[in-house]
Amino acid sequence: MSYVLRNALIPTSTGYETRDVHIEGEQIAEIGPSLAVTGTEVDARDKLLLPGFVNAHTHSSEMWQRGIIPPYPLELWLAQLQEYSPLDTEKVYLSALGTAVETLLTGGTSVVDHLVLIPGQELATIAAAVRAYRESGIRAFIGPLIQDQALSAGVPSGGSATLQQEAYPLTTAEVLGIVEEAVRQFHRPEEGITLMVAPTGIQLCSDDLFRGCVELSQKYNLPRHSHLLETRAQQMLAQEKYGCSAVEHLQRIGYLDNKTSLAHCVWLTDADIEILAQTGSTVVHNPLSNLRLGSGIAPILKYRRAGVNVSFGCDGAASNDSQDLLEAIKIGSILHNVTDLDYRHWMTPRESVEMAARGGAKGLGMAEQFGSLAVGMQADLVLYDLTQLSLLPRTDPIGLLVWGRPTQVVDRVWVRGRQVVAAGTVTTVDVNKLRRDLFAHSHWDPLRKSKQVKQLEAHYRRVMGLPE
Amino acid sequence: MSYVLRNALIPTSTGYETRDVHIEGEQIAEIGPSLAVTGTEVDARDKLLLPGFVNAHTHSSEMWQRGIIPPYPLELWLAQLQEYSPLDTEKVYLSALGTAVETLLTGGTSVVDHLVLIPGQELATIAAAVRAYRESGIRAFIGPLIQDQALSAGVPSGGSATLQQEAYPLTTAEVLGIVEEAVRQFHRPEEGITLMVAPTGIQLCSDDLFRGCVELSQKYNLPRHSHLLETRAQQMLAQEKYGCSAVEHLQRIGYLDNKTSLAHCVWLTDADIEILAQTGSTVVHNPLSNLRLGSGIAPILKYRRAGVNVSFGCDGAASNDSQDLLEAIKIGSILHNVTDLDYRHWMTPRESVEMAARGGAKGLGMAEQFGSLAVGMQADLVLYDLTQLSLLPRTDPIGLLVWGRPTQVVDRVWVRGRQVVAAGTVTTVDVNKLRRDLFAHSHWDPLRKSKQVKQLEAHYRRVMGLPE
Repeated sequence: MSYVLRNALIPTSTGYETRDVHIEGEQIAEIGPSLAVTGTEVDARDKLLLPGFVNAHTHSSEMWQRGIIPPYPLELWLAQLQEYSPLDTEKVYLSALGTAVETLLTGGTSVVDHLVLIPGQELATIAAAVRAYRESGIRAFIGPLIQDQALSAGVPSGGSATLQQEAYPLTTAEVLGIVEEAVRQFHRPEEGITLMVAPTGIQLCSDDLFRGCVELSQKYNLPRHSHLLETRAQQMLAQEKYGCSAVEHLQRIGYLDNKTSLAHCVWLTDADIEILAQTGSTVVHNPLSNLRLGSGIAPILKYRRAGVNVSFGCDGAASNDSQDLLEAIKIGSILHNVTDLDYRHWMTPRESVEMAARGGAKGLGMAEQFGSLAVGMQADLVLYDLTQLSLLPRTDPIGLLVWGRPTQVVDRVWVRGRQVVAAGTVTTVDVNKLRRDLFAHSHWDPLRKSKQVKQLEAHYRRVMGLPE
Repeated sequence: MSYVLRNALIPTSTGYETRDVHIEGEQIAEIGPSLAVTGTEVDARDKLLLPGFVNAHTHSSEMWQRGIIPPYPLELWLAQLQEYSPLDTEKVYLSALGTAVETLLTGGTSVVDHLVLIPGQELATIAAAVRAYRESGIRAFIGPLIQDQALSAGVPSGGSATLQQEAYPLTTAEVLGIVEEAVRQFHRPEEGITLMVAPTGIQLCSDDLFRGCVELSQKYNLPRHSHLLETRAQQMLAQEKYGCSAVEHLQRIGYLDNKTSLAHCVWLTDADIEILAQTGSTVVHNPLSNLRLGSGIAPILKYRRAGVNVSFGCDGAASNDSQDLLEAIKIGSILHNVTDLDYRHWMTPRESVEMAARGGAKGLGMAEQFGSLAVGMQADLVLYDLTQLSLLPRTDPIGLLVWGRPTQVVDRVWVRGRQVVAAGTVTTVDVNKLRRDLFAHSHWDPLRKSKQVKQLEAHYRRVMGLPE
């Protein structure tokens, strides 16, 4: 297909200009005034064209638990999440579809799904998500969420052995075997489906699991992903496990490189930050879940000054509890102003847009393929309607988009040159049917009481120094 | 008019129940199963009914500058705001209308407009806002923003007298005269238009101005409003001016009582908090502008434990930069989890809803009139469509509403028994015409450079201990 966008507002280095943009096949073929080309004509007057953003960290199936888990820190929250995850592959399919729709309608053209696997149905889980992402047309990076230790291992002992450590049902080799088989079956980057290696994090993974993931990453050229130091408890755990920081340990075992993206990074030292900069690793900032779970404020201004690449993620919808990428970008931009008195260090909306698009692509090792509005790049593009109430009056379009609370502003979206949103509606998915399906598969239930949380809570409070 | 809402989901103390709700005239007449009453029938099945929220602090005309002021702290931000405020009363009318629409579509039925007055056209400014609020049907509390000192007085001297103090063009008596005349002309609480006394804050107001406002408040039974200790600079200034904290001073001059609401309250001491609790004063939490301007994180969990009433505001759209009340409630709820390691102190979605509705009404001295879903209360009600994608799958409706990122979920709204939103559309305002008007009265302009900021900046950086 070929499209010609007429008179789109596009950003220059400091302002805006009106340009035609020609999409040919999967790529941006030409940008200029009054292009003499043919193709499906799109009237882009009074509309802002930007490269699509990357929802650089989420867990799609958490959508089934959004709005319901009580105010808990990560470790207790996870216990309840796991207890109430009676997932089937149909639900995985529906929540991946919902995640794709919400991402597409809030500026995203790519999603990184750190996908929770149904025990015993790991490949079927991945297949269900792949099916949803293919249907929606979003560019998807699927990192099967793996571990080789049971949940209880993720809480520091605090010097005592009060918490029973259960065995994990799969061996490290079996876990790695699942990932390799998934790569064989589903990894099709040229079709917009990329598999990643994605151990959940140092708190539940052995060194052998991380090393096996490095091997798979090298063998198949896969991006690497992981959680990293989301909570204070994880920082304590790393010291207990390794006698050094988690970042030093990950560097030592070779996990960090320029296609490694690390979700959260709240509890890093200055020395850790230096390691991320040296290795070219990317921090994925998930401001909403960090607030919701009380994890802390990631030192994003420090990362940026140290030259560390930073992108934005919604995180799973049970810890956010939404999947609105523009919301994550806004809060992830303004949150840090309270951490540094000198406003000259604060992020500007243009910097935020750059982080969300190019920064996201860079974290996946793909900044040469997408994430910028330039000739030769993949056409992952979003056209925003600047006549919607939430983007009025006319001031600075990017300022309004990033700092405002835009609703119903995404007019059209292309991913790899394919139009997937038109007139504000996702054209690849029957959204009304999706709503009916989500409704039918759920029921209002405000009073879930978790047994696992109860078991873990006394230990957690003791280790964290909280009163009983 | 009379309405009967059939089968609405309404909250009980811990769960939900399905009930009919009868609105008769301005009031909630009856709540119960299968009511045998007549009136306009509303199918409320799969919809959540809540009391309307109060947007408890905003400045409507700032809508003209949303998205455009650079990342500055309050004192520099204000200098640029003031320089680029070429307002006319038509613009005041349009931005008040826009503020009403955005508030109504995000759960609000009341707005507190701390209204910036056009010099020399003060009463015409208020008239324009009143006209917009009457048309929209929202319940409006209009506090003409007054001061009797020039902007430069609002920055602490830091012991040096480097900053020229300009004279303010009106005397204290003239300022108070304007407010009293506005009360005579526009104060009609029984019609949903309430005037407030609203000195901008200790940084730009004399004691005589505060005392004059207390007198007017007593004479006409007006709610009292003010900014309070939004920034660290204001905390310094209070010590310079009074030799004590701003809260101690306001208590001494009699400004604090149980219909006094105070916007921001970021820099209070424990002793200050005790004074707010004793006087029954209300804190209006504006989390988004506090982040955007780097003002700090207001100690809301402390306020709540001390028994201080807290409500939520969007603040003006140039420091937020939106007017989405659900966004302010969400961020104002989860932000504080990073300030207290003990999750048992964190706010629950039900507490947030209570603060936004009843807390808002209480701060205006009107909790007996509206803000609760109970027979005999004014029918300020919002019906949320729980089948919208952003409120699915079905888990806990209030959790989804507060923690999610709901869009297009407000189905119907009543204010004082009058329906002002139906099928997700504001019926009292021609929103498409409003969009065209906002568009026509503005132009894209990302490159404003402020002279006033330049003049103030060197002094500000010196006083705040920032490098040159």
